[in-house]
Amino acid sequence: MLTKTNGHGEEHLLIVPFVQLSATTIKQLEERFGQVTVTVHYIEDDSPVPDDVLQRATILVTMFYLPDPFRAPNVKLVHVLSAGVDHVLSHPLVQRVGVSLTSSSGIHGTPIAEWAVMSWLVASRRYQILQRAQKSHTWDPINEYLNSVETQHGKHVGILGYGSIGRAVAKVAAALGMKVHAYTATARTNPQAKRHTGYLIPATGDPEGQLPISWHHGTSREALDKFLSLGLDHIVVAVPLTAQTTALLGAHEFGILSKNCKSATKPFITNIARGRVLDHDALAVALESGTLSGAALDMTDPHPLPESHPLWDVRNLQITPHISAMTRDYFPSSLDIVYENLERSRLGEPLVNEVHTDRGY
Amino acid sequence: MLTKTNGHGEEHLLIVPFVQLSATTIKQLEERFGQVTVTVHYIEDDSPVPDDVLQRATILVTMFYLPDPFRAPNVKLVHVLSAGVDHVLSHPLVQRVGVSLTSSSGIHGTPIAEWAVMSWLVASRRYQILQRAQKSHTWDPINEYLNSVETQHGKHVGILGYGSIGRAVAKVAAALGMKVHAYTATARTNPQAKRHTGYLIPATGDPEGQLPISWHHGTSREALDKFLSLGLDHIVVAVPLTAQTTALLGAHEFGILSKNCKSATKPFITNIARGRVLDHDALAVALESGTLSGAALDMTDPHPLPESHPLWDVRNLQITPHISAMTRDYFPSSLDIVYENLERSRLGEPLVNEVHTDRGY
Repeated sequence: MLTKTNGHGEEHLLIVPFVQLSATTIKQLEERFGQVTVTVHYIEDDSPVPDDVLQRATILVTMFYLPDPFRAPNVKLVHVLSAGVDHVLSHPLVQRVGVSLTSSSGIHGTPIAEWAVMSWLVASRRYQILQRAQKSHTWDPINEYLNSVETQHGKHVGILGYGSIGRAVAKVAAALGMKVHAYTATARTNPQAKRHTGYLIPATGDPEGQLPISWHHGTSREALDKFLSLGLDHIVVAVPLTAQTTALLGAHEFGILSKNCKSATKPFITNIARGRVLDHDALAVALESGTLSGAALDMTDPHPLPESHPLWDVRNLQITPHISAMTRDYFPSSLDIVYENLERSRLGEPLVNEVHTDRGY
Repeated sequence: MLTKTNGHGEEHLLIVPFVQLSATTIKQLEERFGQVTVTVHYIEDDSPVPDDVLQRATILVTMFYLPDPFRAPNVKLVHVLSAGVDHVLSHPLVQRVGVSLTSSSGIHGTPIAEWAVMSWLVASRRYQILQRAQKSHTWDPINEYLNSVETQHGKHVGILGYGSIGRAVAKVAAALGMKVHAYTATARTNPQAKRHTGYLIPATGDPEGQLPISWHHGTSREALDKFLSLGLDHIVVAVPLTAQTTALLGAHEFGILSKNCKSATKPFITNIARGRVLDHDALAVALESGTLSGAALDMTDPHPLPESHPLWDVRNLQITPHISAMTRDYFPSSLDIVYENLERSRLGEPLVNEVHTDRGY
């Protein structure tokens, strides 16, 4: 356990991280919360959080850990380090009258957009071939690149789920000269409906929903098929996993995408949602057969992927171990939300990213 | 030699490419210039361009090849497939009264911006480690990424030379949440001066010069040192090679950059200019010692890099064989300029990208 008493503010912030924080991150926390007492406790130390720390804590930042409410009488804000909060909603501390619950929704877009665009460019710009040439000290002739590499400029990207992550991807895609098409469950037909609610990292994403050149919506198979027929080069899957989105994309959908794609390069699938949103067997077939040109998965089904699973070696498939949002900025970005809410609380304003435990969002 | 007579327009377009064009590219040419007679001649066939083709040609698109002016009496426009035109300026065909010369300047920005951002992300997001993990079927724990990866968001990028390439890089950098600082030889203090002149691929780059949060200029060592002291995480070198820019960045400059960088990750150098703009020995030392965190070179000194050269294996250095602009879009993009100039010519407007042979630009 690491206790830092940096200030003499009245707030006592207890942070229970899910991994060991680096010295850099700790330093950033200290600077950020100069006027707040900060305690960082690692639950994997297997030592319980001391009673006096829990007694004093007014704000709890956690991923999974939640104490008995009677041991933490002064906690008034629980901030969860993930975007989803389902796993804590029913806990008596969170249910206690006077306790606010906030999520980290909105901080994932910036790093995930980087991961997505890296996946696209590594595939389209033939990075692995370039890398091999360097390793073998070979100055490759340019012909092969000149006749095979396509830029992303002018390509059409369909984004399934236009939330904070979809919007962050859209911003980078638009800067590359790509044309963005948004798909949402419910209609977004006016400026108010196109606006993003909830936290966004400042100066990122598309808060007003101005980037898509077309908007589409629906929850039926017909509506989705119509969207996939637009002539898309990319699909970015950024929807929550629900009964309706399970196996949302499979052989049928990959076929529609492939048939309607107008470029020389077949469509590319980017999944930043849960693995089960895609039919992985169908994805493997589509990649091996050339129906799709490539795919990037940050989560798989099963998850994590066992060593012996055939998916690891599928042609033109990039698999990463759920790290698309995992950067040194993760904790500082999540704590920015706590910081903003401390300010809002002082000013008597409504909190950002507050989850109402009765509604679950 | 391939002759295509697609139309019955009065223009005869002779294209002498520097590599074999793909079927896709030929098809694009045919579609683009439907009303113009197009002849594609490969000079590496070692067959001279037939007299009757030269006789008819009104527009010549070439990289190096230029015929005796008496053999090509009807040529009124020479369009060069490169950004620079130094190598053709003094040729008698180009010097002939009534012949206009245009360059391909402006088409390199879009693909080079992709190459630059790929180089940054591959380094910052630890792509090689991710790739190795996939190859060995390993689902890596997230801790290492969480404590080591930095996003580009909030990082400061200095762009040396704010032309079409610098502007294209700036656009993608800004979308990633980076802060752009521009450096030019001459002062750009008003909106007119900040504007880009010359061709830009539509909807790319920063035509009005609105993205930089600061502008700097000068040709002295002092002015450059001041720029490099801003606290930059990235330097993008996009200046022409002149006596003044030879060895522009060396041990002294890398030291200034490193000392002033405020991030945990040391500065990253991206060179899309000629190799000799950087002192490569100093670069190798700076990378091996950790003064710099990484670098990406698309041209080297010497160029091409011999197989035995030690630069190939320098730590955290990415080398590519001058392919940053080499995509399937290269010829179509370059010919877009010819197409636009045919239109302008019909409308009696001044040509875009025209180089005045007396001035050399």
